[in-house]
Amino acid sequence: MNIILFEKEELTPDNHVIFNDHRAKHIVKILQSEVGDSVRVGEVNGAMGTGNVLTIHRKYPFIVELAVTLSDSPASQPAIDLLLALPRPIMLKRILTQVTALGVGTIYLINANRVEKSFWDAGILKEEEYRPHLIHGLEQAVDTRLPDVRMCRHFRPFVEDYLPKICGNYSSLVLAHPNSDKSLSHCLVEDYGKVLYAVGPEGGWVDFEVEKFLNRGLQSFSIGRRILKVDTAVVAIHGRISQLMESKMSF
Amino acid sequence: MNIILFEKEELTPDNHVIFNDHRAKHIVKILQSEVGDSVRVGEVNGAMGTGNVLTIHRKYPFIVELAVTLSDSPASQPAIDLLLALPRPIMLKRILTQVTALGVGTIYLINANRVEKSFWDAGILKEEEYRPHLIHGLEQAVDTRLPDVRMCRHFRPFVEDYLPKICGNYSSLVLAHPNSDKSLSHCLVEDYGKVLYAVGPEGGWVDFEVEKFLNRGLQSFSIGRRILKVDTAVVAIHGRISQLMESKMSF
Repeated sequence: MNIILFEKEELTPDNHVIFNDHRAKHIVKILQSEVGDSVRVGEVNGAMGTGNVLTIHRKYPFIVELAVTLSDSPASQPAIDLLLALPRPIMLKRILTQVTALGVGTIYLINANRVEKSFWDAGILKEEEYRPHLIHGLEQAVDTRLPDVRMCRHFRPFVEDYLPKICGNYSSLVLAHPNSDKSLSHCLVEDYGKVLYAVGPEGGWVDFEVEKFLNRGLQSFSIGRRILKVDTAVVAIHGRISQLMESKMSF
Repeated sequence: MNIILFEKEELTPDNHVIFNDHRAKHIVKILQSEVGDSVRVGEVNGAMGTGNVLTIHRKYPFIVELAVTLSDSPASQPAIDLLLALPRPIMLKRILTQVTALGVGTIYLINANRVEKSFWDAGILKEEEYRPHLIHGLEQAVDTRLPDVRMCRHFRPFVEDYLPKICGNYSSLVLAHPNSDKSLSHCLVEDYGKVLYAVGPEGGWVDFEVEKFLNRGLQSFSIGRRILKVDTAVVAIHGRISQLMESKMSF
């Protein structure tokens, strides 16, 4: 936890917050803060700043009161969005945290032929279940801006109705697909604006799905012959896109 | 499992293998192969090819006998090596599998100031414990070449005595370090040969360590202000280096 986040509603009118959960424990046990010390804090979807420790209860149940000063604007909105065929719940949790730490604006979770139907009944798809995993990624990366998570249980409505509406938000829309003969660098346009990258389920997209995406303007790319698990692919491709965007900006 | 691997010693003089473990179960339950079907197989550190199913025992204990034909040479040696401050065992397991799937030649596990001493006593550091995680990565990526894993429990002998001996193997040696003002693309030399990338422990390298590495010719780079967990960083940076190597080759 490299920043301690709180919800807007937790802030009292005199800009105090009182923690009595894992955040208090973190301040007591990991940071080993004393009264008068400052810790890095941020408001979810708001500004970052410092929390000055006013009181500490060092024994269980840990309680810490902070006087909060928010001085730094949040990091800018990440320029990368992820379109992901719904993975199995345990993998989704890890992906949500990792991709939030790496920086993502919106995560679209969609259906695909090779997505197991039961995945759509998983508890992790409820906001109260997945939100902590996003928060965890923000706390790691020192960010306050929660990614937007959107779910579409049906493939066709997503691709036919929804995707055309959001396409205009992106300068590049790319689809990881092992059979493609194009490399990622050839699919990202020169003036990198926002990029949407799509990663399929274990076993890949079926031909029908690939065709639908290509018809909607996505470009397929391959990162080589090695077959990767979805969680590895999501992180490695995020790194590749970030690198291309950075290299471009620095020349 | 996108390829089924076996050890050289498992091959009979007439090029048969008999599986009675998870590999047999995979052929019976996942691939649902019949007698006469072919499955993709490979010899660890050897060639790839097909295994023709000769006999199947479909009930527990599953037993499958294959006639093996090895026709394809193994993938070429990956051009990326990883130097990693020993992470906690559960994270190391995941990293070993992921980085093997991504493609890595040698993994150096070394000590650092912020590595917990107890990590060096973990069972996973025994070859019989970590090897299955490497195999798992190869089976995922369809490769047969095991990464070389080397461990150095002491930082100074590694950096002062060992590192100078291997430096000549690399065209670029780079060190992920949040405080660096250089980007990765500025640290990789133009004619990409082999690259060694170094990732520190949670909390980062201490100044002494960074200085030692820089003195030995490593160049530090930063991938931005977001702080990543070690496993995320290892995969994302592997993606970044691969992208730079690819982009270079394609121009």
